[in-house]
Amino acid sequence: MALWGGRFEEAVSEVTQEFGASLPIDRHLYRQDIAGSKAHATMLAAQGIISEEDRDAICAGLDGIQADIDAGAFSFDINDEDIHMSIESELTRRIGEAGGRLHTGRSRNDQVATDTRLAAKALAKQLMEDNLGLRRALVEAADAAGDTILPGMTHLQHAQPVLFAHQLLAYVWMLTRDFGRLRAAFDAADASPLGAAALAGTTYPLDRQMTAEALGFSRVIENSLDAVSDRDFLLDLEYACSVMAVHLSRLSEEIVLWSSQEFGFITLSDAFSTGSSIMPQKKNPDFAELIRGKTGRVVGDLVQLLMTCKGLPLAYNKDLQEDKEGALDAAHTLDQCLTVMRGMVSTWKVNAGRMRAVMHRGHLAATDVADYLAKRGMPFREAHAVVGHLVLEAEKAGCDISELPIETFRAASDLFGDDVVGAFDLDAIVAARTTRGGTARAAVAEQRRAVEDALAADEAALAGLSAVVEMGEGTRSVL
Amino acid sequence: MALWGGRFEEAVSEVTQEFGASLPIDRHLYRQDIAGSKAHATMLAAQGIISEEDRDAICAGLDGIQADIDAGAFSFDINDEDIHMSIESELTRRIGEAGGRLHTGRSRNDQVATDTRLAAKALAKQLMEDNLGLRRALVEAADAAGDTILPGMTHLQHAQPVLFAHQLLAYVWMLTRDFGRLRAAFDAADASPLGAAALAGTTYPLDRQMTAEALGFSRVIENSLDAVSDRDFLLDLEYACSVMAVHLSRLSEEIVLWSSQEFGFITLSDAFSTGSSIMPQKKNPDFAELIRGKTGRVVGDLVQLLMTCKGLPLAYNKDLQEDKEGALDAAHTLDQCLTVMRGMVSTWKVNAGRMRAVMHRGHLAATDVADYLAKRGMPFREAHAVVGHLVLEAEKAGCDISELPIETFRAASDLFGDDVVGAFDLDAIVAARTTRGGTARAAVAEQRRAVEDALAADEAALAGLSAVVEMGEGTRSVL
Amino acid sequence: MALWGGRFEEAVSEVTQEFGASLPIDRHLYRQDIAGSKAHATMLAAQGIISEEDRDAICAGLDGIQADIDAGAFSFDINDEDIHMSIESELTRRIGEAGGRLHTGRSRNDQVATDTRLAAKALAKQLMEDNLGLRRALVEAADAAGDTILPGMTHLQHAQPVLFAHQLLAYVWMLTRDFGRLRAAFDAADASPLGAAALAGTTYPLDRQMTAEALGFSRVIENSLDAVSDRDFLLDLEYACSVMAVHLSRLSEEIVLWSSQEFGFITLSDAFSTGSSIMPQKKNPDFAELIRGKTGRVVGDLVQLLMTCKGLPLAYNKDLQEDKEGALDAAHTLDQCLTVMRGMVSTWKVNAGRMRAVMHRGHLAATDVADYLAKRGMPFREAHAVVGHLVLEAEKAGCDISELPIETFRAASDLFGDDVVGAFDLDAIVAARTTRGGTARAAVAEQRRAVEDALAADEAALAGLSAVVEMGEGTRSVL
Amino acid sequence: MALWGGRFEEAVSEVTQEFGASLPIDRHLYRQDIAGSKAHATMLAAQGIISEEDRDAICAGLDGIQADIDAGAFSFDINDEDIHMSIESELTRRIGEAGGRLHTGRSRNDQVATDTRLAAKALAKQLMEDNLGLRRALVEAADAAGDTILPGMTHLQHAQPVLFAHQLLAYVWMLTRDFGRLRAAFDAADASPLGAAALAGTTYPLDRQMTAEALGFSRVIENSLDAVSDRDFLLDLEYACSVMAVHLSRLSEEIVLWSSQEFGFITLSDAFSTGSSIMPQKKNPDFAELIRGKTGRVVGDLVQLLMTCKGLPLAYNKDLQEDKEGALDAAHTLDQCLTVMRGMVSTWKVNAGRMRAVMHRGHLAATDVADYLAKRGMPFREAHAVVGHLVLEAEKAGCDISELPIETFRAASDLFGDDVVGAFDLDAIVAARTTRGGTARAAVAEQRRAVEDALAADEAALAGLSAVVEMGEGTRSVL
Repeated sequence: MALWGGRFEEAVSEVTQEFGASLPIDRHLYRQDIAGSKAHATMLAAQGIISEEDRDAICAGLDGIQADIDAGAFSFDINDEDIHMSIESELTRRIGEAGGRLHTGRSRNDQVATDTRLAAKALAKQLMEDNLGLRRALVEAADAAGDTILPGMTHLQHAQPVLFAHQLLAYVWMLTRDFGRLRAAFDAADASPLGAAALAGTTYPLDRQMTAEALGFSRVIENSLDAVSDRDFLLDLEYACSVMAVHLSRLSEEIVLWSSQEFGFITLSDAFSTGSSIMPQKKNPDFAELIRGKTGRVVGDLVQLLMTCKGLPLAYNKDLQEDKEGALDAAHTLDQCLTVMRGMVSTWKVNAGRMRAVMHRGHLAATDVADYLAKRGMPFREAHAVVGHLVLEAEKAGCDISELPIETFRAASDLFGDDVVGAFDLDAIVAARTTRGGTARAAVAEQRRAVEDALAADEAALAGLSAVVEMGEGTRSVL
Repeated sequence: MALWGGRFEEAVSEVTQEFGASLPIDRHLYRQDIAGSKAHATMLAAQGIISEEDRDAICAGLDGIQADIDAGAFSFDINDEDIHMSIESELTRRIGEAGGRLHTGRSRNDQVATDTRLAAKALAKQLMEDNLGLRRALVEAADAAGDTILPGMTHLQHAQPVLFAHQLLAYVWMLTRDFGRLRAAFDAADASPLGAAALAGTTYPLDRQMTAEALGFSRVIENSLDAVSDRDFLLDLEYACSVMAVHLSRLSEEIVLWSSQEFGFITLSDAFSTGSSIMPQKKNPDFAELIRGKTGRVVGDLVQLLMTCKGLPLAYNKDLQEDKEGALDAAHTLDQCLTVMRGMVSTWKVNAGRMRAVMHRGHLAATDVADYLAKRGMPFREAHAVVGHLVLEAEKAGCDISELPIETFRAASDLFGDDVVGAFDLDAIVAARTTRGGTARAAVAEQRRAVEDALAADEAALAGLSAVVEMGEGTRSVL
Repeated sequence: MALWGGRFEEAVSEVTQEFGASLPIDRHLYRQDIAGSKAHATMLAAQGIISEEDRDAICAGLDGIQADIDAGAFSFDINDEDIHMSIESELTRRIGEAGGRLHTGRSRNDQVATDTRLAAKALAKQLMEDNLGLRRALVEAADAAGDTILPGMTHLQHAQPVLFAHQLLAYVWMLTRDFGRLRAAFDAADASPLGAAALAGTTYPLDRQMTAEALGFSRVIENSLDAVSDRDFLLDLEYACSVMAVHLSRLSEEIVLWSSQEFGFITLSDAFSTGSSIMPQKKNPDFAELIRGKTGRVVGDLVQLLMTCKGLPLAYNKDLQEDKEGALDAAHTLDQCLTVMRGMVSTWKVNAGRMRAVMHRGHLAATDVADYLAKRGMPFREAHAVVGHLVLEAEKAGCDISELPIETFRAASDLFGDDVVGAFDLDAIVAARTTRGGTARAAVAEQRRAVEDALAADEAALAGLSAVVEMGEGTRSVL
Repeated sequence: MALWGGRFEEAVSEVTQEFGASLPIDRHLYRQDIAGSKAHATMLAAQGIISEEDRDAICAGLDGIQADIDAGAFSFDINDEDIHMSIESELTRRIGEAGGRLHTGRSRNDQVATDTRLAAKALAKQLMEDNLGLRRALVEAADAAGDTILPGMTHLQHAQPVLFAHQLLAYVWMLTRDFGRLRAAFDAADASPLGAAALAGTTYPLDRQMTAEALGFSRVIENSLDAVSDRDFLLDLEYACSVMAVHLSRLSEEIVLWSSQEFGFITLSDAFSTGSSIMPQKKNPDFAELIRGKTGRVVGDLVQLLMTCKGLPLAYNKDLQEDKEGALDAAHTLDQCLTVMRGMVSTWKVNAGRMRAVMHRGHLAATDVADYLAKRGMPFREAHAVVGHLVLEAEKAGCDISELPIETFRAASDLFGDDVVGAFDLDAIVAARTTRGGTARAAVAEQRRAVEDALAADEAALAGLSAVVEMGEGTRSVL
């Protein structure tokens, strides 16, 4: 009640206090809040709005508070409602009246927008680092795979043999696009709302450019109403996380499949597996399953904010207080998922022999046998039918098409010569797909260079990002 | 690692430990877990699988642990991974080897399903109580409203005058349907999975009916695979919360509108309003906005679980570990929203005079003027056109249709007599809508009796629910 | 423009005409609209509000229009905006002035709510029939499976052997719960809004009970505002579809897995498979994939309506026009999915030999070997560790635990005797899980009886539903 | 069955034919499919894979088919399953055997990815044009608003007066960000998958760069597995539409509010309003409501695709067939919404007098009265409390703070002088908020220049986009 003063005759009750308080969430933004306040105070002094003494007291006081929170030596009080009041009231307790001058020309509306944007930048940057880490791990796994081939699948059916490296690099490209979305989210957040005040700007001669620069923002938001009501940058972050989570869910699905007794393509390390309390033989790909399962969580976060923002008139509405939890959750979840996935990929054991052993089951050579006929003059659609019948015969005989006797081939078409066995060679099939982006060794080597270029470009982009205010210690463990 | 024993050569790393642990969430289910274990131990002894001494030691040990957790005197250790191991390992520390026999014929798969179902029942029951509380508050507000009328709206445009009581009772009916959905969620959860073990049942001669009854379950789940993989009951709970949240968002929108300077239909109490740190005049309907905003959160929880469950093969998959947080969040959110809404409704001040004052702006009598013509023989479609023209003239003159001179009416149709002014009387307009479910005083009184019947039936239903294991103390504050 | 008459000076433009028109969707409800109008006209005559001659002309005219639409001989005109105006204006063309009296005491607001509820009832009923059809097909497949066992899995890892019938019945139970949700959706829709008029009831002496009964509604909605603004019944229908789609996605995932070369547990019939335009050997489980993929669609429909309803004040708002397309889409999608799934299940070929052949890979007997030790006095946790080490040795030796030499067992524990081989018998392992709901043959037979009881109860429930107005011909093909 | 030839012994049934067919949706991509085929045939000839005669016959044949479809003179047959087979089989009917050579070195997997990317580019470009159109309309409305002020609101409560132009420009900034997201979606789609074949590349010496350039793609996708399985570009498009829809829902909410009798800030033109079939006075903001309501639809489309993609292994899976309908729906919906919103904004009548008249209700001067005290030396927090008490007195007196007698001010603080009335001047309050991005006339003029710069930059970006294949005629009306 102290907060909004004279107009009110009755205090808020305890249940509404808890319901209305944003402190359990926004206290994780204490460093952002303190950085924003220091920049604001410094600017107020530069513009002659407060004295240099006040500025010094404010900044020193805030530094002390930050040190205490960093050290876990600060008691938050739910009655302070939010992180802004928690810090400001403590500041005033510590330095007296100067603390009360900090809020000049500022409102909680632009203050919380500033804090949240600073946090979004730090989270996006962290995820860009994680993203690069996983990409590097996948590239290393691809490099290590050499000429290992696995049955390339469509519809989870054997389709054509592909290099295992080619399969892994497909995921690297997905993550490369994810990096782009994270960067877009970073850029979206990278604009300063400070100085918009409650909704309309202020009557104080603020220097918004100065605070923006001090906080590492690349630009100033040009419309004060937009500054306090825009949450697009959080949607962008949650969307980037959502698509990345979908990508990780696809790789997780493959890890679960590949680890099954039926596939047996990889063996996860014990460090990335768990067992059963009742079944002694169990070695479960729990972490891949959890990553897959968390996709729903992150998409749920995105749906939440889209729905919350729907139909809100300008400018600030309290509905927007619900913006931070989902974004922190989505970013934290992806931070974990990317890290754990990196560990799984770096430590799995690839069972190249098993991959090759199962390749006699799916008639993987069928397309090349049809091409054999087509290259001898038969229209492809006709060749497709001829080979289809051969596959059917093989199925009935319980063997692979490559195991049918040569007579069966000749009976199907007199274009077949003894050299058709050349079409059964899985390595040759892989080697023949030399078109750009194809699975032949040379094409994959060319692709590998493009992957490296993208990695280098993104590493440079990460290095060139504007400075961020790092999330405070202890935040992660609390979430 | 201790958990799954001999097969593993490497320990899980710290980051995966944190990632994989469900303890931060499922520790809120400690009472359910303990109740389940006591019922299981009691049954094991009754079936002669463990001794009575072991049973007594186990039950006494578990009671002691529950007392400690209730008192906040229990230190959870993330290395225990989940609530089951937290309690079982502590139990074994306290009572020795007997603790190790508790898990006989049980797996964490059926154990966690049991805990979660017990929790879902407790949460659904709490929400049914909250739901009845808000309905009672709305009915009291409707009763207090007497003959107060407000401009009934469609498209947020004045349509026809209605009793304010009628408007409030519309929300009671929404909540009555919500009660039905909550009860369906309760019933869905009300079946015992205990005894399904890992996925296939066990070789021990368990008495599943006995544990079901001891825990207050109405029935036993008939298929062990289904028992460990079904999470429909959580979807049902989250769906019930989602629709209820949408209903509350609609009432919240009206509260925000009615509290605005432009409407002014109600004044919220200070206890359910907040102010501004910068604008001294502000008295904001923050809590209504927050309730509206939280709709997205609850729907996000529902989307999360639906997406997580998509495409999972039988039986248990680790993805399902993501099931509890959203359900607890959705239930806790609605518990708060229903309580806060009840407070708002119980303490608002209705500005009947203002409601009436604005009713000269929207030509609310237009339908009845058209009916006046129709009852004098003009086809309704034609009467509609005549009155439409009169409204247009009134708009141009800047007045309400009821303020046009009688000559203008006569010029529009010679069916108009001086008695047309009777059609302008807003109270008479309301009183004339006597069809069942209509807004006339008598019709609303009849409706009021139907409301009372539904309340009585739901109160009886609540009283007749099977027993629940209440959520432990301290759970709420932690969430 | 003709529709709202005198007040308007300007016509709606073409683009807004198309944007605002609901006709492309609501024309699928023509039978519901006509049934509603006939019931309304009949009641108006019974109450003396229109003449018997008018009633007869109206009903005959409407019958003629329905026959024309049924026959595909009716041209809809987008300028009529919606199905109500399409039919009413044609009716007036056909029978003259009497057509204009049909709309007495009615508004499009209660009219569209009536049509939509009638459609929701018809759709829910159709889905209940489909649901029973698939359940019957699954039960037949379970009956046909006899003693076939497959490796029961958790985490997609071999866990314990289970009867294939047991696995299939798990899906029957999911669908049994879905039936309950469909029935709840039917009941939610089963209340008549007709007579609520625009929002407040009318001044005409309507008999709402009479129209409700004529249309097969079990009850009358008690609040006119609620009658025109409630869309819960569509949410309930879409939610029932969403959960059922999730269940089907799980079975679809298993079908895709089981059809893969790696699993090979079933072979889909050609009629429920497709091939490739390029790879002659491909036989893809396309329909299972499509069913799995459509889960997103149905959940998307649910999210759409929840979001659309958020924050709408009373009573009717145009946003609600967006209600029908998603509900029709969700119901139509599930109608197809249930039908196609039934076909797949009824025609697949079960490869029991293959299921058994793969069961030597996952140490499926490990739990029973541990139980062997436990029953000879070793605490289960210790037995678990012993067997875990044996599994590790088997893995290193590249064999199943059951293939280890007996000396290895004896070295691990002297409790092992020669009779440990009895613990390796997969049929015996299945047979030993005799607890209620377990996978032993007798337990499954008992379960089968419970399944039959539920089927009989639901068939009776379906037969006892109040009458519905069937969806018109041609509706399906257009969607 | 003709499609996949020899392996199959049984035809697909009618119901599965309808279920599996993508033709009802993908036929809208006929121009994209034909452009892709022409580019492919031209490249095949250039590489010597087919003859120049075949190429000419193919291209001429395809042109003829396109002309027929454009003219509505082409009968699609559901048995052709998809647009690819519809066109290819017709082509072969028209030109004979050469038609069969078109599919050389191509699969439907890369073909459908090509079509979909071309469509996504065309849709994104159309939406960028629509986006610029609405921004221009809003800027014109802002320019026309001059010095009109309205009560700026937070929490829908009067906060501080702002220029109406400032309020409108806030929406322009939202749309400016939307343009960026649309452009990102365009860029995401702007890469050619053609040549990836089924999943692994082909054995034919294709020139992928050549087909990419012929189709206007800026680059070639570097991994064939990624080429056939990536749908990120559709997610990006649907996400861009989702956020834009949320922005439009906010403006729609304001339009609905501003059009209400209580606000009365604007009057919509008759062309963008509708009436009631029963209430002659109604003039409803239907189109604003519909736009608001359609937000759910577009977000539902996004959720659908995210959920559908979850957990899919590489490479192509049939689930992905569900990708196009939602994207076409989202884009078509936004195309309509942007167009209709532009019309509404361009034709509304602003009631400046009404805006000003209501501004005496919310104590809009309170902040400036507090600033008055603060500038005379009172700490702001104290000044806030003093003015809060004055507001409370005004509320009790039923007047605005500016209407209180000067004595009341003096009694509250002796810092108040007669000149306090200067703080009540709403125009002066607006004029004093001169900080960058503030609502003062000069600040808004500066903002207006930044808006213009962004418009110019986006118009240049639009002009510089790579060429697109326009969507075929008739597509819109069918959706």
